Amino acid sequence: MRLVVVGGVAAGTKAASRARRVDPGMEITVYQEEPEPSISECGLPYLLSGMVEGRDRLVARTPEKFAEQDIEVRVRHRVEKIHPATKKLSVRDLLTGEAFEDSYDRLVIATGARAVLPPIPGADLDGIFGLRFLTDADRIMAYVGDRSPKKAVVVGGGYIGLEVAENLCRIGMEVSLIEGEDRVALGYGPEVSEKVEAELERNGVHIFTGERVEGFVGDGRVRGVEFGGGKIEAELVILGVGVKPSVGLAQEAGAKIGPTGAIRVDGRMKTSLPDVWAAGDCVETVNLVSGGPAWVPLGDTANQMGRVAGTNAAGPAGEQVLEFPGVLGTGIFKVYDLGVAKTGLSEKEAAEAGFEPASASVDARDRAGYYPGAEKVFLKLIADADTGRLLGAEAAGSGADKLVDICATALWGGLSYPDLVNIDLAYSPPYGPALSPVIQAATILAGRFDRAREGVRAAE
Amino acid sequence: MRLVVVGGVAAGTKAASRARRVDPGMEITVYQEEPEPSISECGLPYLLSGMVEGRDRLVARTPEKFAEQDIEVRVRHRVEKIHPATKKLSVRDLLTGEAFEDSYDRLVIATGARAVLPPIPGADLDGIFGLRFLTDADRIMAYVGDRSPKKAVVVGGGYIGLEVAENLCRIGMEVSLIEGEDRVALGYGPEVSEKVEAELERNGVHIFTGERVEGFVGDGRVRGVEFGGGKIEAELVILGVGVKPSVGLAQEAGAKIGPTGAIRVDGRMKTSLPDVWAAGDCVETVNLVSGGPAWVPLGDTANQMGRVAGTNAAGPAGEQVLEFPGVLGTGIFKVYDLGVAKTGLSEKEAAEAGFEPASASVDARDRAGYYPGAEKVFLKLIADADTGRLLGAEAAGSGADKLVDICATALWGGLSYPDLVNIDLAYSPPYGPALSPVIQAATILAGRFDRAREGVRAAE
Repeated sequence: MRLVVVGGVAAGTKAASRARRVDPGMEITVYQEEPEPSISECGLPYLLSGMVEGRDRLVARTPEKFAEQDIEVRVRHRVEKIHPATKKLSVRDLLTGEAFEDSYDRLVIATGARAVLPPIPGADLDGIFGLRFLTDADRIMAYVGDRSPKKAVVVGGGYIGLEVAENLCRIGMEVSLIEGEDRVALGYGPEVSEKVEAELERNGVHIFTGERVEGFVGDGRVRGVEFGGGKIEAELVILGVGVKPSVGLAQEAGAKIGPTGAIRVDGRMKTSLPDVWAAGDCVETVNLVSGGPAWVPLGDTANQMGRVAGTNAAGPAGEQVLEFPGVLGTGIFKVYDLGVAKTGLSEKEAAEAGFEPASASVDARDRAGYYPGAEKVFLKLIADADTGRLLGAEAAGSGADKLVDICATALWGGLSYPDLVNIDLAYSPPYGPALSPVIQAATILAGRFDRAREGVRAAE
Repeated sequence: MRLVVVGGVAAGTKAASRARRVDPGMEITVYQEEPEPSISECGLPYLLSGMVEGRDRLVARTPEKFAEQDIEVRVRHRVEKIHPATKKLSVRDLLTGEAFEDSYDRLVIATGARAVLPPIPGADLDGIFGLRFLTDADRIMAYVGDRSPKKAVVVGGGYIGLEVAENLCRIGMEVSLIEGEDRVALGYGPEVSEKVEAELERNGVHIFTGERVEGFVGDGRVRGVEFGGGKIEAELVILGVGVKPSVGLAQEAGAKIGPTGAIRVDGRMKTSLPDVWAAGDCVETVNLVSGGPAWVPLGDTANQMGRVAGTNAAGPAGEQVLEFPGVLGTGIFKVYDLGVAKTGLSEKEAAEAGFEPASASVDARDRAGYYPGAEKVFLKLIADADTGRLLGAEAAGSGADKLVDICATALWGGLSYPDLVNIDLAYSPPYGPALSPVIQAATILAGRFDRAREGVRAAE
């Protein structure tokens, strides 16, 4: 039995390792285009500032380590075609240029996602980079080493753009961030976006929102960015305008693609092709709150999907297999001292999904007020006005990660706001106010719902 | 309509405030023996070291503040008798010694808990204190100011004893902690107890476990503590050997007392007496994991119970009222840099409750391994071997509060270990490893359960 995995970052390597545990005798090969497998891509922004010291720290496992587990990892190899009828693969060695054929009994596609480079004039100038792979970081750092750019522009105010802006600013560059929409961090409500912008500006990052980049100018190398009728100087540009699932290989082989543009899989991470599974940033899953399709290219989810795909791809056919239930849309990032996290749906997303959202916010502290060092944290809970069911939460400030993880677990358990009013969380003065901000916000929601019901009763 | 609340700390003041919100016209009086109401008792250990600066910071609300809400708070008054048949109260003004009668339409008993002073010879010497009320802290601090004790002994290795040991050590005292059982923090498994002892010892606290105090010796003032056939010097002794519910008043009035020794209430916090509710450290509730009775004297629970009791006591009879569902047994404390938390049942408690517990532990980090400043955290999950249902969790280290709050929410939602394998928590390098320690531990449990099932199948 031979398992081939296409793609060797989070989902692919996890699938291979899991398959090895399930079936010690299986032949397992991983093909990977980039020169290293098993990269912690979420750490890339921190490499730029040196906060993460040394690129090798982001290589979680080398091919030699995989070999010890009897998993063959072939880097600098591109799988160019899948032939599902014959279970053959066309592969190219990117170092020698040589093409050859391989075959599989079971296949896992983990081709990930790729940076979207916008069709902006001048986007091919030197000094303009995406940041998706470790090799991108290598190229950026080499360019910074050679050219010592003083002024940088980051295009895009999503997670990566925001993290890159901080990290370039930390090493002394003058950084401007340009976002086409009217605020950064669009997955969140406006209160959170405002805090993120304020935190970056407080630390010296210039923020331009509602501005579309019209062009990059330069003389071979980038010198400036044009937008809003004007121009700012830039010796380095990072494009953080988004990623797209890499589905070409799967699509060409006939695998079904979902409405999000990612590969459609069933609950067992199986594609529409026989004996082909897929996992990670290239697949579509379900948002468990909205019930709709979701594409969430995040490292932790990729790991979890890889575990399920690898287990199932290695298991004897017809055996009990693992299910991947879907996601909540949980995410987190940090800009300077501000932690920002969300789970489930924002108010806007909830309305789009057909709910009538009600929300309650609190400006709380991460410790008892009298305990030294207490810092601020904002929390918003979003619930369905009809049923009281929790739909989402977002937080910004100290301990945002904890509050959002509590709410993510509550979403996973299908809890409603009255559950959160009485929930028994851990309290001690160094760890929060006597009643957690989650309980505080739920209690406000309870008051609103009670008043709304009284209003209905009074009107009857 | 007249509401009287007996006891003005967390549950009592919360009940009064909630009643006022529900019924703006109600007459509300709170009687309180201690000189201040609304004390944050959980902050008392930190007052000793000056980490909390100034006793007044622990007074959440003064009687004047309550008066603004039209709530009369009468401090230094003891309710000596409840006459449920006539709805009268015998009250004594502790300043004048005068006795008088009051009456109620609705009554909330929130008499709290009291420190248990063990029957040890010499326990009445000067310099030996319990720590339950703000006035206890006042007396301790006055004694420390007058006598400048250099050597202190703390008796009891529960939450309060451990926190007091740290805080006395912080102000330069040589502190010994004596615990009768063979380890401190008995509500936890032995791994956690070991970490707590190591953290205290690393910071200079001497720990004696498995040692019963045989006597206190001195000349009016305490000079030493005898145990294990020997004696250590002590110029200050804090007894942290536990608390008991204060139920005398309720019991004498005929209220039913539960098996834990605390007042029995129904889900609406109503006692067995007509128009009498009770809340806080004096009542018994349900452990939602074991289904058995639970007595949990903690400030956050008292607040939540007070909210329910106050709302119901103020509501028109027969109206829809709030329920307090019970507790999980969640708790947290800190010794120096070590956060320690638990929720649900420990393995021992689970076995006692009739479960067959299975557990999995991980030694994880609070950040991605490559992100600077990563610190250790230990997590143990306890599940029912029969059904896979989560029964409890305990954690020690950085971010223990977050991990236990996730698990508490999972318990509240009745989740099982497979839920936790796939749960969508917030990941970014500054906030944890790619897979949360909760997911890591659940995955180990999953592997064990799978192997156990395979074992059963193989044997069949």
